[in-house]
Parts: sequence; C-alpha cells; structure tokens
Amino acid sequence: MKKNILIIPGDGIGQEVTEWGKQVLEVIASKFGHEFAFDNAIMGHTAIEATGNPLPDETLAKAKASDAILFGAIGHAKYDNDPSAKVRPEQGLLKIRKELGLYANLRPILLFDELLDASSLKPEILRGTDILFFRELTGDVYFGEKLRNADNTFASDLMNYHRYEVERIARKAFEAAQTRGKRLCSVDKANVLETSRLWREVVQGLAAEYPDVETEHMFIDNAAMQLVKNPKKFDVVLTANLFGDILTDEASQIAGSMGMLASASIGDGTGFFEPIHGSAHDIAGQDKANPLASILSAALMLDIAFGLQEEAKAVTDAVDQALKAGWRTSDIAVNDTPTDRILGTVAMGQKVI
Amino acid sequence: MKKNILIIPGDGIGQEVTEWGKQVLEVIASKFGHEFAFDNAIMGHTAIEATGNPLPDETLAKAKASDAILFGAIGHAKYDNDPSAKVRPEQGLLKIRKELGLYANLRPILLFDELLDASSLKPEILRGTDILFFRELTGDVYFGEKLRNADNTFASDLMNYHRYEVERIARKAFEAAQTRGKRLCSVDKANVLETSRLWREVVQGLAAEYPDVETEHMFIDNAAMQLVKNPKKFDVVLTANLFGDILTDEASQIAGSMGMLASASIGDGTGFFEPIHGSAHDIAGQDKANPLASILSAALMLDIAFGLQEEAKAVTDAVDQALKAGWRTSDIAVNDTPTDRILGTVAMGQKVI
Ligand SMILES: CC(C)[C@H](C(=O)O)[C@@H](O)C(=O)O
Ligand SMILES: CC(C)[C@H](C(=O)O)[C@@H](O)C(=O)O
Repeated sequence: MKKNILIIPGDGIGQEVTEWGKQVLEVIASKFGHEFAFDNAIMGHTAIEATGNPLPDETLAKAKASDAILFGAIGHAKYDNDPSAKVRPEQGLLKIRKELGLYANLRPILLFDELLDASSLKPEILRGTDILFFRELTGDVYFGEKLRNADNTFASDLMNYHRYEVERIARKAFEAAQTRGKRLCSVDKANVLETSRLWREVVQGLAAEYPDVETEHMFIDNAAMQLVKNPKKFDVVLTANLFGDILTDEASQIAGSMGMLASASIGDGTGFFEPIHGSAHDIAGQDKANPLASILSAALMLDIAFGLQEEAKAVTDAVDQALKAGWRTSDIAVNDTPTDRILGTVAMGQKVI
Repeated sequence: MKKNILIIPGDGIGQEVTEWGKQVLEVIASKFGHEFAFDNAIMGHTAIEATGNPLPDETLAKAKASDAILFGAIGHAKYDNDPSAKVRPEQGLLKIRKELGLYANLRPILLFDELLDASSLKPEILRGTDILFFRELTGDVYFGEKLRNADNTFASDLMNYHRYEVERIARKAFEAAQTRGKRLCSVDKANVLETSRLWREVVQGLAAEYPDVETEHMFIDNAAMQLVKNPKKFDVVLTANLFGDILTDEASQIAGSMGMLASASIGDGTGFFEPIHGSAHDIAGQDKANPLASILSAALMLDIAFGLQEEAKAVTDAVDQALKAGWRTSDIAVNDTPTDRILGTVAMGQKVI
C-alpha cells in the first residue's frame, strides 16, 4: 500500500512525541511491505512564530493533499494568560478541523491491564472499562459567532447546531455501537439548552433505525458523575463538541494518564490523528513526555484511515509488551515502580520500536 | 432569633428528603431557643400538575417574603424524553434563581472520613480533600436567548456574560479563599470562548486586590481531569454556570455520593438552600433516598443565612456521629456494610435527629 502521510508536530511536547508515532509508521511500512511517504508542516505557536499565522496556507494545502495526518499538540501559556491576544495557536487547530470537515472525533478509552494501578480510580471500578467517545468536532459553541461589545463590558459565544450536523455524527456513533457493545449513550443538557433539545430529537429519531442498539440519553452533569462512579456502564458515548472536550479529558484518568490516549478525527476527507494531551510546555524538551499516545494515534491511522487492522494491532501489541515488561514513563509510574524502569520519551519510543 | 423559613419540597425524592431538613431545623430551634416559622410552597413538576406553572406567583411571593428557603429537587423524566415540551419543571428553578438574584451558588465538597471507602476514587487520593465551589448561577448559556428556526433544522443558545456578573461572584470567591486555604482556581475555556476571555480578564484584574490569595486559571477540560487525578490540589474553585454544573456533579464522587452534598445559593436577597442531587424519580416514594444532603443544606442555611455557626456545627456533628455509628443509606453503603446498618430515608433522618 502506498500512502502520503503529513506530520504536523505542532507545539511543546508535540515536537518530541510525534517523532515516535512517525518512526513506528516507518517500521510498520518496512515490516509489512508498505510505502509511506512523509512530509512535514507547521501549525500553532510554532507557525505563528515562523509566519504570523497559526495555520499557514502551505500547511492546509499539504494537509488536503495527504492521505492522513499525524498531529502532535497545540498551545502555549503565553497566549493563555493574555485574554486579549488576537492570534492564538488554537485557531490553527480549529481551522484545520473545519477546513478538512473533521466532524467526528473518536476517542477510545483503552485500558491496559498493566496500568490499572496508575489511575486514581479503584482497580475494581476500572477493570473491564471500554468506552468509545464520538465527539462532534466542527460545530457547537466552538464555531458560533463571538462578540465583545465596544466598552468591553459584555462578551458572548453562540452555541448552535444544525440538524444535519447532529445526524451525521450520530449515525457514525450508532454504526460503531452495532459493532461493539450495542449500547449508545447520548449526552446533552436538554433540560436547559435548546441546542440539546434539537440534539436529543435527532438522536431519538435515528434510534428507530438502529433497533439492535440500546439508546440512552443522559444529562452532561450526570454523565460527568457516572464516568467516575461507574465507567463500565458506558459503551459508545455520543456528545457535542464542548461536552465531549470535557468528558474525554475526564475519562483520561480511566486510562491512567492523558499520555495514553489517542484520537482520530474523521469526516469528509483526509483523517487527522492526534494524542488528546496538550502541548505541556512545562515538560517540553526535557525527554519526559509519554510518546505512547502519539504511537497509539499512529495505530488508529493504520486502522481507520488505511484499513490496516493487522498492522494497527502490531502497534498496540508492541505498546502492550513494553508495558508488560514493566517500562513506564513518569506519568504512568506508580509509587512502587522501580526507578530503573522509568524511561524518558526516547527510551520508551525505542522499546516500542 | 426569629426567622421565617419557606419549604419547597419540589419533585420526586425532594418530597421525602426535605422533610428531614425541616425537622432538623425544628430541633435546632427548640434546643437553641430560636423561633423558626415554616411555610410551604410548590415548584417544578408538582406545580405544573397543580397549576400549569412551574413557579406559581404565590410561591415566588412567599419566597421573596421569607428569610431563607429550603428546597428539595426538581425534574421529571416525562419532560426529559419530550424535547418539544414547552413547559418544564426546570424553568421554575431557573426562574426563582433569577428572580431572587441568586448569582452565587456555593457547593462545599465535604468529605466525611467514614465515607472514604464509598467513593470510586482511592482513599489516598481523597484524604484531605476540601473544596469550595463558587458556581455563577444567573448568567451564561442558561439564560441567553434560545432560538429554533421555523423548519426545525437549527437551534441555538447564547452563551454570554457581563463584566459585573463575573466580578460580583469572583469577589465572593476571593473573599472565601482568604478565610480558607488562600488558593483560588478559576476555570474557563479561554483558548476557545470569548466569554471565557472576558471571565479571565476580570479575574486577573481582581487578583491584584487579593494579594494574599494565590490565583490560578485552568481550562475546563483540564479541570475535569485534575479533579479526578488530584482533588487535593483545589481549595476554592470559581466557575461559570455551565462549567460549575458539570464539575460539581463530578466532584460529588469525591464525597462518596451525590446524596451527601448540600448547596447554598446567595445573592441580592433571600438565600436558597438545596441538595445538589436531582429528583431521582426511580427511587422516589420508596424510602430509599439519602436525607443527609437536605440536612446538610439546613446546616448551610443556619451558617450562611442566619450566621448561626454553633447551630450549624451541631447539625454536621450529628451527621458525622450517625456515620461514625455505622449508619448508611444504600447510596453510601459499601460491599462490607452489614445489612442491618443500611437505613431508609426515615430511619436515617431519625438517627440524625
Ligand atoms: C486546544 C483546544 C482548542 C482543543 C479543544 O478544545 O478542542 C483540545 O482541548 C482538544 O480537546 O483537542
Ligand atoms: C435541574 C437543572 C436545571 C440544574 C442546573 O443545571 O442548574 C441542576 O442540574 C443543578 O445543578 O442545580
């Protein structure tokens, strides 16, 4: 198989971890006889520094022309603490999601047995958890009109959804549920929000077309609670953009660390694969970041973008073996992890390779 | 002290649990020589059934005239599953919050040592946790304009904040932080939302006036994660309405159960005290609900509305003693709780009395 893959390391630890997702793809290509051609592009803070634009035209053109994209992370504290900054790294990420039509963000909560102890949740609460989030990614309050009045005393963001936006992601979630545990939980705040009432109507309407899937509706506040109380009760979770952002970060604690979670953004064209963690500038450049989320993002690319299930499994198995052998990065180490088993980014990447 | 207290049991288990908050107030009155006069009013589904209106004028008039309100819970599945319902129980709650100017919702995450095991989080993660949430309660996407287009293909809700709305709750949070751990964490999504950027600007501006308080800003997705990972790191948490709704429900798992958490809503006039749990119609009328959140809401009333700290402490001590004696309602029981220690609503209420 011949594929063009675009690597966008982005900001902070994105630079370090994406290197390992890429190297894993190279090993897979040579082992399984594929031809993966790689190109590089910039985005986020890195791109602002170089060009003034968080998503340069060249990056967008390369992205559209590629078969799949491996992305690192975005963001920089400099902008976070300056609410009046007009140009921000995150604009690059939001724009590329919109431009590539990446309306469905899949976030599997994959639990490696070896990491049961790394979580703040009790092992008996965690064991057996297997959740697949479908987060809507190109609508909601993220993309609605933003206003600030002239005398700076008022600000607003429009939360909004079109019926077709809810329908297309809901269908993907129902279809996924059919191939898994056959349960779908749609999360909203229909007791308060009109947007959520439209959301619920659409999902209720579609449920009839998927009679083999057990459909449930849950308020976001309750879902945030149930996810900690009893994560096993969830199979496929369907959410709007903002609620999905919150719930999936919360759910990262189920997997022991944010450093373990990969995501796939898909939609109209080229798929986009990235860890759910951020740029973590506090540890950037120090060989401390966990490369496993980037490596698992590469596995998702093989599986979802290229349909290479066997190759994807080879990657997750390699991660599993590294963990079974006792290797840990510091984010997934526990009190009694022997210090000689705690690795930096490079060493952990090499173990998986 | 002479006070007029309005009791609004509301819907579902609200009816059962509020009775015990009230009885505890009666006992306190007779023990400490106060005169508490009680009146009753209806709200929510109960009020819709009786009058067609989730917040009848009579209830609102009584509320405004009272010195404090003890509320139960609101909501009914009937409306949740009918996204097109025009009249809904929750409208009553939102309207009374607005009409009474209850802009600050205080939600203390109080951890009883005896319940460390009832949580899904590991005891060593929990021990020492003491968080006070300040959730803004009369603004945000809850109260912004709601639209549905004529052909039902589009819906929106306006998320919005005025500077003064952020300032008045932020001041309350800073002041509370000064009397506690002197740390304030303000939660927003300033990397995406204009409303959050205004929020952050205001909080940054005020921070200079409270130099003894260490102020931190955190994105909501990160906060939802940190709350599970390391709840001890929080002291006072300041949030907008929607984010606070989500985070405080999530945080209920720290206290072992939603059935343990009380809240105080304060602002321009009469204070409003209520459990953070919902109407739980699935267990309503079965003597299963935990009355402790209502009883602890009564304690918050004594403390915050009437300044009766000693009386408030007598109530929380009584709850503590009931727990120390091993008494549990089913929501806070664990696997090895002896069945003869598991009580219903009435029996648990009596133990505290
Ligand atoms: C960086 C930020 C804009 C982004 C989001 O909120 O979508 C991130 O948190 C994520 O979840 O991918
Ligand atoms: C019932 C609902 C409208 C309410 C809210 O979202 O504010 C509830 O969840 C709460 O937290 O008090």
